[in-house]
Amino acid sequence: MGSLKLDHELENDSHMMVNPLDPEEFRRQGHMLIDFIADYYQNIESYKVLSQVEPGYLKKLLPESAPYYPESIETILQDVQKYIIPGITHWQSPNYFAYFPSSGSTAGFLGEILSTGFNVVGFNWMSSPAATELECIVMDWLGEMLMLPKSFLFKGNGGGVLQGTTCEAILCTIAAARDQMLNQCGSEKMEKLVVYGSDQTHSALQKAAQIAGIHTKNFRTIKTTKSNSFGLCPNSLRDTVRADVEAGLVPFFLCATVGTTSTNAIDPIGPLCEVAKDFNVWVHVDAAYAGSACICPEFRHFIDGIEGANSFTLNAHKWFLTTLDCCCLWVTDPSALIKSLSTNPEFLRNKATDSKLVVDYKDWQITLSRRFRAMKLWLVLRSYGVANLRNFLRSHVKMAKLFEELVRNDNRFEVIAPRNFALVCFRVLPWPNNISVANHVEPVNELNKKLLESINESGNVYMSSTVVDGAYIIRCAIGATLTEERHVIRAWKVIQEHADRCFTQQKLV
Amino acid sequence: MGSLKLDHELENDSHMMVNPLDPEEFRRQGHMLIDFIADYYQNIESYKVLSQVEPGYLKKLLPESAPYYPESIETILQDVQKYIIPGITHWQSPNYFAYFPSSGSTAGFLGEILSTGFNVVGFNWMSSPAATELECIVMDWLGEMLMLPKSFLFKGNGGGVLQGTTCEAILCTIAAARDQMLNQCGSEKMEKLVVYGSDQTHSALQKAAQIAGIHTKNFRTIKTTKSNSFGLCPNSLRDTVRADVEAGLVPFFLCATVGTTSTNAIDPIGPLCEVAKDFNVWVHVDAAYAGSACICPEFRHFIDGIEGANSFTLNAHKWFLTTLDCCCLWVTDPSALIKSLSTNPEFLRNKATDSKLVVDYKDWQITLSRRFRAMKLWLVLRSYGVANLRNFLRSHVKMAKLFEELVRNDNRFEVIAPRNFALVCFRVLPWPNNISVANHVEPVNELNKKLLESINESGNVYMSSTVVDGAYIIRCAIGATLTEERHVIRAWKVIQEHADRCFTQQKLV
Repeated sequence: MGSLKLDHELENDSHMMVNPLDPEEFRRQGHMLIDFIADYYQNIESYKVLSQVEPGYLKKLLPESAPYYPESIETILQDVQKYIIPGITHWQSPNYFAYFPSSGSTAGFLGEILSTGFNVVGFNWMSSPAATELECIVMDWLGEMLMLPKSFLFKGNGGGVLQGTTCEAILCTIAAARDQMLNQCGSEKMEKLVVYGSDQTHSALQKAAQIAGIHTKNFRTIKTTKSNSFGLCPNSLRDTVRADVEAGLVPFFLCATVGTTSTNAIDPIGPLCEVAKDFNVWVHVDAAYAGSACICPEFRHFIDGIEGANSFTLNAHKWFLTTLDCCCLWVTDPSALIKSLSTNPEFLRNKATDSKLVVDYKDWQITLSRRFRAMKLWLVLRSYGVANLRNFLRSHVKMAKLFEELVRNDNRFEVIAPRNFALVCFRVLPWPNNISVANHVEPVNELNKKLLESINESGNVYMSSTVVDGAYIIRCAIGATLTEERHVIRAWKVIQEHADRCFTQQKLV
Repeated sequence: MGSLKLDHELENDSHMMVNPLDPEEFRRQGHMLIDFIADYYQNIESYKVLSQVEPGYLKKLLPESAPYYPESIETILQDVQKYIIPGITHWQSPNYFAYFPSSGSTAGFLGEILSTGFNVVGFNWMSSPAATELECIVMDWLGEMLMLPKSFLFKGNGGGVLQGTTCEAILCTIAAARDQMLNQCGSEKMEKLVVYGSDQTHSALQKAAQIAGIHTKNFRTIKTTKSNSFGLCPNSLRDTVRADVEAGLVPFFLCATVGTTSTNAIDPIGPLCEVAKDFNVWVHVDAAYAGSACICPEFRHFIDGIEGANSFTLNAHKWFLTTLDCCCLWVTDPSALIKSLSTNPEFLRNKATDSKLVVDYKDWQITLSRRFRAMKLWLVLRSYGVANLRNFLRSHVKMAKLFEELVRNDNRFEVIAPRNFALVCFRVLPWPNNISVANHVEPVNELNKKLLESINESGNVYMSSTVVDGAYIIRCAIGATLTEERHVIRAWKVIQEHADRCFTQQKLV
């Protein structure tokens, strides 16, 4: 490599290195790291699941500037153990129940390190044909596992692409839908374009709309209600869209969600698509978390009506054993994406692209450079197989049912929204749960906030919260790969213990 | 984990698995993979550097759908060897000279697998404090290595963030600059906003402007000339901006480049910033490739004047031993980014954020979820040290000088643009290079296209091309980690041999 030849600065320095990719040194250090990570998984329950460090802790521990001379991997790993691990919130811990899972697996890990090892930059077919072709293949595989209509698959003239996160995917589809609409009604209508979601839609939609230049005043968050289980009501959508049209605005994009982040609410895809169709509105279905479950026949009905949508996403890095990041986006009309996102600089021109026989994924996403993400999804699909993947998802749902039962059996608690998948939303009440809290919202919220803080500060389990319809709610999302039934039972015990303490300490209301 | 317990489908199936993150199985398979990748590096020169497969090759080799039952890692790795590797273009090969390097290293790899192992989702400080804090620290470290003005560092109230690619970074800065400008002049001016670059600026700018909703007709690519070495001329910028202002338009964003993709041209940062300042235009400096070299004192002058810019990027995944993806973005005013990109959903509310003592990187980028990218940059900085990193970069520049000399010594060839770093742009001529080609542009371009095709099809080396000022040019970018002087000398021999053949086969002009 010539690259790290002796410089006069380093002459006679015993730490001088020869080749940053020397295969034998790579092998030595690589094995060391595998053991380090395997040990981490082995010991993961000994760490507090939510990191308890204070803001600024690390600055006090690390030097002011980068070292001039090389340091050994042994030294660095000691620092990882001493300084980094205490500052990590252990998403892989079996006691992790916050947000949504980030379900790692051996296969996902191996796929990631294979693609890191090859380190190809697959912006177009030509730059590494296998990266593009494997992606097309696994996206059709997974699309079929989900029983997506053929129109979403390459074999039906649609197709799938792996992006980093749902935020990127929504931004790409918004840009495509926006340009398609402006193309029809004239670019001067930009200011009139309206985006729709519910008050439960992920903030990714608002952010994507903002980045895409949609005017803030044209971003609609349609109110949902508890009586509708926080799903977006098609009639509310129709009324809102109609009013906008009457006001001279141009509706163009709806994001419907299957499994919202707060409570896993379900927007009814079919009826919403019918409304959208009447107004020529692009429908994106965000099933970031719950989409994975739809490979099980018993959950597939949640995306019924998907044939009326234009695009669909799920995050394989959430609940599908594929390491971060891996968002699966399918579209029925790739040309709409390509029209908005393609560029053809001279330095990328090549025969394969000119032949039009290949997919150039750079035109399906925001970024030019792209990692070989298909590798990890391929390894997950093959290493576990459809059967095991279904079992994996079902086992989490089963554990969530158990947890839900435990909550329901303690009359100090109430389950706050239907449990559709493996997320249980609940709260504690200062009195039996058949008495209304309507006049005591704030103290009840405070009680739950205190309870959650006390649980999380214990480091024994980590759950997160949300506020829906004014109520502060604790979210228990089951899905960490290492979680077993015993962890769920223990988590519930931890909650009960902390609730006992809260009740003793406080005299509420 | 309960997760992969027996389903009736899998009962009595010997392939049934127990735990997708079982530490011992992880260890066994992990070690296997490390050897697989180490062997790949060991044998990398035995593969044709540019993949020679035909479009659609992989579909013929893989099954129609995902397997129902699990497959062993041994089977999968055999398939990687048999089916995937032939379809890979070997960016890590020492004979890879195309586009820009994707310089892998043991430290970069180890950092990536550590962060994959932890698999944390560091959207905000709270979700994994170490991920955020280490990022702030290494961004200040690297900023100081580049001698960036303090205003770009956290210690000077600016700051850095790791994104995936420059495309994302430019989009974020365009959105920030756009909203800042609209805030001043009113949102109805959206249609009037103008973006500036040169005809050599990366297509990332055009794409970002398009995604951000800037009107196509307001995207300016200012012409550069060979006499200016394809750098953007400040006077041309001033004239263009002034004309736009006079036409009632609103200039707001300039992307200046240090080391353009086609020829490594340098836009003069200082003088361009002065023009921009007069018109209140945000300046982003894109040093995706060449920025790395600026850690060497002798190259630092290329970013002189950076104190007048608003944002600066380099891709550590290009020429800084850090695996894809790792774009370093620094800004002088993080609040401008945050104003455009922040969201505050209930499910992410937490004490640390409320305290305002922490950085929440979700508000500095497009996506919410984010990988722990700082880990790999930290490992690269520590494992090699400033001294070795400089040597690494210098060794490539030295090899590029050698290559340039070889080209210049063969009077059938000409070097087409100044070699500022480790990229040499050249072409072959059908007659001695002191005779003008002005009247024979097409046949000369055809000759070079044929030559490059023939070189690349040999599989011995891989170079890429561009077109500048009407001339088709071959690009030789030296920077693969494994490249040594002998590879460069051999590459030149390959070119000469193929040129000999082209000359024999064709009678040109």
